[in-house]
Parts: sequence; C-alpha cells; structure tokens
Amino acid sequence: MSTHVYKSIELTGSSPDGIQPAIENAIARAGQTIHNLRWFEVIETRGHIEAGKIAHWQVTLKAGFRLDE
Amino acid sequence: MSTHVYKSIELTGSSPDGIQPAIENAIARAGQTIHNLRWFEVIETRGHIEAGKIAHWQVTLKAGFRLDE
Amino acid sequence: MSTHVYKSIELTGSSPDGIQPAIENAIARAGQTIHNLRWFEVIETRGHIEAGKIAHWQVTLKAGFRLDE
Amino acid sequence: MSTHVYKSIELTGSSPDGIQPAIENAIARAGQTIHNLRWFEVIETRGHIEAGKIAHWQVTLKAGFRLDE
Amino acid sequence: MSTHVYKSIELTGSSPDGIQPAIENAIARAGQTIHNLRWFEVIETRGHIEAGKIAHWQVTLKAGFRLDE
Amino acid sequence: MSTHVYKSIELTGSSPDGIQPAIENAIARAGQTIHNLRWFEVIETRGHIEAGKIAHWQVTLKAGFRLDE
Amino acid sequence: MSTHVYKSIELTGSSPDGIQPAIENAIARAGQTIHNLRWFEVIETRGHIEAGKIAHWQVTLKAGFRLDE
Amino acid sequence: MSTHVYKSIELTGSSPDGIQPAIENAIARAGQTIHNLRWFEVIETRGHIEAGKIAHWQVTLKAGFRLDE
Amino acid sequence: MSTHVYKSIELTGSSPDGIQPAIENAIARAGQTIHNLRWFEVIETRGHIEAGKIAHWQVTLKAGFRLDE
Amino acid sequence: MSTHVYKSIELTGSSPDGIQPAIENAIARAGQTIHNLRWFEVIETRGHIEAGKIAHWQVTLKAGFRLDE
Amino acid sequence: MSTHVYKSIELTGSSPDGIQPAIENAIARAGQTIHNLRWFEVIETRGHIEAGKIAHWQVTLKAGFRLDE
Amino acid sequence: MSTHVYKSIELTGSSPDGIQPAIENAIARAGQTIHNLRWFEVIETRGHIEAGKIAHWQVTLKAGFRLDE
Repeated sequence: MSTHVYKSIELTGSSPDGIQPAIENAIARAGQTIHNLRWFEVIETRGHIEAGKIAHWQVTLKAGFRLDE
Repeated sequence: MSTHVYKSIELTGSSPDGIQPAIENAIARAGQTIHNLRWFEVIETRGHIEAGKIAHWQVTLKAGFRLDE
Repeated sequence: MSTHVYKSIELTGSSPDGIQPAIENAIARAGQTIHNLRWFEVIETRGHIEAGKIAHWQVTLKAGFRLDE
Repeated sequence: MSTHVYKSIELTGSSPDGIQPAIENAIARAGQTIHNLRWFEVIETRGHIEAGKIAHWQVTLKAGFRLDE
Repeated sequence: MSTHVYKSIELTGSSPDGIQPAIENAIARAGQTIHNLRWFEVIETRGHIEAGKIAHWQVTLKAGFRLDE
Repeated sequence: MSTHVYKSIELTGSSPDGIQPAIENAIARAGQTIHNLRWFEVIETRGHIEAGKIAHWQVTLKAGFRLDE
Repeated sequence: MSTHVYKSIELTGSSPDGIQPAIENAIARAGQTIHNLRWFEVIETRGHIEAGKIAHWQVTLKAGFRLDE
Repeated sequence: MSTHVYKSIELTGSSPDGIQPAIENAIARAGQTIHNLRWFEVIETRGHIEAGKIAHWQVTLKAGFRLDE
Repeated sequence: MSTHVYKSIELTGSSPDGIQPAIENAIARAGQTIHNLRWFEVIETRGHIEAGKIAHWQVTLKAGFRLDE
Repeated sequence: MSTHVYKSIELTGSSPDGIQPAIENAIARAGQTIHNLRWFEVIETRGHIEAGKIAHWQVTLKAGFRLDE
Repeated sequence: MSTHVYKSIELTGSSPDGIQPAIENAIARAGQTIHNLRWFEVIETRGHIEAGKIAHWQVTLKAGFRLDE
Repeated sequence: MSTHVYKSIELTGSSPDGIQPAIENAIARAGQTIHNLRWFEVIETRGHIEAGKIAHWQVTLKAGFRLDE
C-alpha cells in the first residue's frame, strides 16, 4: 500500500432478494465506472415494507478505490 | 408524504436460520397488529451459541408505520 | 418529578414548510391520543427532494410523557 | 428463544434515593401493564439538583418483553 | 426502488439567514450538476460569529441521488 | 489561525419562538462576558411541551472563542 | 424556562465508596462556587484498582446551571 | 446467570460465501479453544473486492463466554 | 507510566444485588488470574427481569492491566 | 463564507513514515485534481504491521473544498 | 485520588508544524492560568489548507485539572 | 484472506516522546508474544501532564492478528 491514496464513496444498493444481493448490486454498478475498487464497509441496513412484507432491502455502504498516480 | 406522521417501534426477531429470517419474523409478527408498516432499519445483530454452534440469530430493528389521521 | 415514570416514543413528522412545522405536526398528532406529553428531542432531520427542490421536511424525534399512576 | 419476537420500550424512572431505586420504579410501573418483561438496558443517568443537592435521580432505560404468539 | 443504486455526497451550505436557507442553498447548488437528487439528511449545524452576532449559518448534509442505469 | 488557542463552552439557549431564536439567545448572553466568540455547533435540540403545544425550544451548543495571548 | 440561558461544565468526582458518593462529591464541590445548579448527566463511570480491589470510583458528569441575567 | 462472570473477545471471520458463513467460521474457530461460548454481536461488516467482485466477506464480532469458577 | 504497555479486556459481571456488586464480582474474578489490574470503565449496564423484578444485574466493563516487561 | 457551498470527500492516505506524512500524501494527491481545498478532518488512524513492525500508516480523512459558482 | 474533584475544559490548539505542537500549544496556554492540569484527551484533529498545503493543524482536546479544596 | 480468522486485542502504549513512539511501543511489546500481528487502529489518544508539560503520551489501539489453523 506504500504511499497510495484511496477515495471512499457512499452507495446504497437495493434488491428484492436480501442483504447480500443489495450489496452486490451496489458494487456491480460502481464497477461500471470505477476501476480499482478494493473494499467496502456496510453502514446501514434498511428495507421498505409493502402489504406487510419486505418489498426491497436497502444497504448503504462505503466503497474504497485506489486513485491513479 | 405531505404532513403524515409516523411512529417507530423497536423489535427483536429471532430465528434458528439466519439474519433475514429473524428480520422477516419480526416484521410478520408486527404486521398482525399494525397496519401501514412502511420501513425498517437494522439496529443490532446478535446470536445465541449452544455447544459451539449458533442456536438462533437475534436481530433488533426499528420499524416505522403511518399513524391514521 | 419525585417517583413518576415516563415513557418515550419515537415519531417522524413531515411538512412541506420546514423543520419546525414538521416537529409541530408530530407533537400535535401525538397529542390526540397521549396526554401528559412533556418534552421532545430531535433525533434526525431529513428531507425529500423533487425536481431539485425540497418537497417535504421529515424530522424524527423522541417525545416523552408521564405514565398515569 | 426460537422464533419469539420481542418489543423494547423506553422508560425513565425517577427516585429521590438513587440510581437503582429509579430503575426499580420504572420496571415496577411497566410491570403493571406489561407481562413477560425480560430485560432492561440503561441508556442515560441524569438527576435534578435543588439547593445544591440531588433532589431526584432520573434513569432512562430500554425494557424488552416477549410478544404473545 | 427495485434494484436501483444511489450515491450520497456530503455538502455544506451556508447562509446569513438561517438553517433552512443554508440547506436550500446546498441543494440548489448540487442540483446544477446532479439530476435525480432524492433525499438529504442533516449531519451538522454550525455557524460563524462576528462581533457577537451569527454572521452565517453552515449546515452539513448528505444528499442522495439515483445513478443512471 | 497560526498558533492561537481557542476554548469551547457548552450552552443551552431557550426561546418560545423556535430553534434559531434559542441559539441567538445563547450567543447573545455569552457575548455579554466573552469577547472573541468565533463559532458555534449545535449539539442537541429539545423542547418542553405544555398542554400539547411546544412551550419553549431548548438548543444546546458549543461556542468557541479565542483566548487572549 | 422562557428565555434563560444555561451553561454546562464537565466534572469528575471520586469516592472510595461507590458511584453515587462520587457523583455527590462532584455536585457538592461545584456548589461551593456555582449557584443555580440545575441538573447533571453521567458521562462516564470508571474506577481505579489497587491490590485487586476498587480503591476509588471516578464518575464524570456534565452539570448545568442557569446564567444570571 | 447469578454471579457468573463472562469475558468477551473480538474476532473477525472471513468467507468467500457471505456474511453468515464468515460469522460461522469465526465462531467455529473460537470454539476450538474456548468452551462455554454463549453469545456474539456483530460489530462491523466489510468485504474485499477483486476485479469488481466481492472476493471475501469479513465480519467482526464480539463473542462472550463464561469464565470457569 | 513511562513506557509501560497496558492491555484491556472486556468482562461482564452479574449480581442479584445491584450495579456495584456486579462490577466487584467481575474485578474479583479477573484478579484470580491477572495481576496488575489498574483500572476499569463501565461499558454497559443491563439486567434480567423475572416475574416483574430484577433477578440479576449485568454490568459490562473494560479492565486494564500492565503487561510485564 | 456568505452563501458558498462546499463539498467533502473521504480519502485515505498512506505512508511508511507516520501519521502526518500519510495525511500530507492524501492532501497532495487530492490537490492534483481539486482546487479550492479548504480543510480536512481526521476520521481514522490505522496501520499495517509486517514482521512485528509498522510497515505503513493509513489515515482516513474528510477534505472539503468550495464548489465554483 | 481519594475524594478529589476534577474539571475538564475543551481547548483547540493550532500550529503550522503538526499535531503534537498544536496539542503542546494548547496545554502551554492553559497552564498560564490553570494550575494542577493533570491529563488531556484528543477529541478532534483537523487542519486548514491553503494553496494545496496544510497551513496549520488544529487539535481539539479535553484537559482536566484538580479543583482546590 | 480466504477463511482465516483474526482476533483483535486492545492495548495502551505510552511514551514521553509522542504519539507514534507510544504506538510503536505497544506494537513492539505485543509482538513479543503474538505472531502474525497484521494491523492496528487508534482508539484514543491521551496524555499525562506534570508541571504544565506533557510527561507521557498514552495511545490506546486495537491490534489484530491471524489465529493459527
């Protein structure tokens, strides 16, 4: 990691299927425009309820990537 | 959302199967008496260990619902 | 306050007009069913944005009231 | 604990005598209307001062109970 | 909200007039370059004092927007 | 700011009119005895309720000032 | 409480006898120079151990008092 | 629980498969040397990203066990 | 304290009698195997309720001790 | 500061030499593409250990800059 | 420490040279008027950036001292 | 990192010379008995003041290491 510099961004992924798919959706979308994604950290796990059931899960995370030199 | 007012309650669901079933159990039980449940947020994820294995998962969440006008 | 016991509930009020009207809406609605409301504390201030403008403000608060003896 | 669901409420007990009596007062009052109280957790310890002395102690706690099936 | 992904950024708006104008200034400026702004959350409220009066208010907030697919 | 040293104090202002008047009251009172007040930060926003209405707002803030050399 | 302004200070009281005496010592000492003490809030409870026993308890608290007009 | 004393340790489990397997790996490894494990609490959920995908999940937890008398 | 190094561990003591006995039980048990215990800090105060009464108090604390050179 | 709007980003700088060089590396790298950097705040200080020594320091900070009008 | 009472104040020291000089400046300035300073704790580390470089470091700390009996 | 399991411990290092030497002392002492130390994170930075000067710095950190398989 020597003298590299990293930037973190905050994303919220959502999915009707659960916590991990919501995280994977966020990482996949971020990867379309950001190379060098290196880690993530879950900040918040929420969900939306419709008719008494969890309609979709919403997970907010920080994702970090290395800035080019 | 105009001028609606919402109330949040704190629930702990449990399940021998994992985090999501514990959350779903809590939402299902709350839905028996509360209409208009709209969202939840995970506050704490714990578990009980027996004989070296996770016997049940316990997830505490806030769940919000709209108060009738 | 001698040996009185108080209960706190968590409410989210909303208003198109601002932070204070959102709080006042929440207190007014709670007062319809709860007597002896005594204090509140702001927990979170959020808002919903539509077409680049704040469409409504959402303020979450704890409100406390004295339980009858 | 299998698939039970628990609810937590927030209470503030007070007492002229100290921290533990304030907690015990809150638990005793809650037990008048709630069965199945199972645990509590102290959230905040405060007090009111009159004429340079602690006139009463105020302890805020979460108390959890099992919802009937 | 299905499988949409959202990004949050952190902004500080300022205004000589108060908390809400400071928030509105931040949202208005962000809206010049970001479409699909959906929500904000207040993180911190500060102010600068000159000659014993509040010269301007500074409110830091997170603002979230939907990423294009 | 070179090598100046600043001190922060914690104040609670109150007002029957709202959040900003409560803050302004606290700053005005502090300015009677403290010169060089430079900034404030809101720590907590509460209020007292009487007869179902907000009787006064109470805002706690840190206020910082430069110590004389 | 109208438009009064309050100041909070942070104190640590200690006692060989326990948590409440440590708090009472801090309040008593503060009352020697400050009139109008109105409330306190416990921030931290610690202790010093000597020879495997608690030699003294140390409780840090915020104490608030009304500023004279 | 009478007068038992418990100790908590902090562990980070990892797994390429997800959050629950990471937790289960940590509990299983701890159980090799510690008897009487009784509960855990999730502290942090992170992950490592390689080539735009989550290569492994890392969950940090506190795990508590009863000390022998 | 020169260049000494200290380690902190997290313990939960319990007692049917109250907060201080729960802390003293934890310190006493830790002292059976650890010399040089120097301080503790209370992290959490909870309790277990049976039949509407507090059956035992549970206090979690960090306890620090000096490592031998 | 009138009605300016500021944006904050989160960066992690690293250095084999210590905390300040890690911060300076992050600020220098950010300054290559961002003008008007105005302040930073340290969020987290970590490090990587190899063969019992600190191989590099990693400091995460928020850095704020003024948005052009 | 027997029954001594301590007071903590919050200071921000600044220095163009780094974190430790900023702390030392704050302690030195406080020592001009306060005797019996005993400890400090770092609360926040910030800095001001000018022309892409750190112009001065600002460290906020709590400093505690024993009150005279 | 595959399925490795890590343990974190909490240490406080001290030094008369500053923050980094205090951290390095803690890591060096821990390395005498623990192999596979991999990272640390600073939790708290404090110091002891004697005669108006910082007599020693005290830095508390979490240090993590891989458990043997």
